[in-house]
Amino acid sequence: MNIYFSCSITGGRDDQAVYYEIVRFLQGEGHEIPTAHLASSDLDKLENNLEPEEVFERDISWVRACDVLIAEVSTPSHGVGYEIAEAVNKGKPALCLYRSGVKISKIISGNTEKGVFVRSYRDLKQMRGLMIEFLSRLQ
Amino acid sequence: MNIYFSCSITGGRDDQAVYYEIVRFLQGEGHEIPTAHLASSDLDKLENNLEPEEVFERDISWVRACDVLIAEVSTPSHGVGYEIAEAVNKGKPALCLYRSGVKISKIISGNTEKGVFVRSYRDLKQMRGLMIEFLSRLQ
Repeated sequence: MNIYFSCSITGGRDDQAVYYEIVRFLQGEGHEIPTAHLASSDLDKLENNLEPEEVFERDISWVRACDVLIAEVSTPSHGVGYEIAEAVNKGKPALCLYRSGVKISKIISGNTEKGVFVRSYRDLKQMRGLMIEFLSRLQ
Repeated sequence: MNIYFSCSITGGRDDQAVYYEIVRFLQGEGHEIPTAHLASSDLDKLENNLEPEEVFERDISWVRACDVLIAEVSTPSHGVGYEIAEAVNKGKPALCLYRSGVKISKIISGNTEKGVFVRSYRDLKQMRGLMIEFLSRLQ
């Protein structure tokens, strides 16, 4: 499947190691992740040369072209929130993952839109299990 | 006009005093602000009794019913990003304001959707001017 992975960039990179694990796992399962580079610890080097308009147009066209969206929502981010709404509006299923104990926006935790799943994880193993469960329902 | 004011809640309340000024100014100009209470310093007391699903359903129906959306985007927030996208998808004009010098998401700063305006302000006076300019174009 073509999976749009959405994670915080400007909002903070404290969870970068988790982003990397998500992308590595999904690619290992044979999925295509257009945003795989966003999980890199060298992201600044990769994206700094791009104009904001280029990033917006590229990311939004990727959201519109994906089969599903998976977002890590432990760190607040305007971009991630925007992309989840864009996916919902285009009828794409969306899985929002966050670390147990982190307080997240009620617009995410209380989201009642069809196809939106919000789940917390205690560790990487549980997180991988949640992604497998989400994706297996769609196939 | 019915103006949906969108601001960070769970993402952080460092800019609460600015939110309060925005709401006070817009109400003083005669506009209706369904989210006026979100600018309060007592927000926790007001919202803590509500289930996340109630907050989501209420806020999204307000976004869909508004004439325009004004967001303060200096503090990263999933909810604010989601609401901006929802407004854009429903064809509502959106003004995104942030303090000069703050780094914001490229999904906001590079947003090329029709009706989206992103502006920075140095002080409250300039911020009020940006809101007047935005609203006068629509009337």
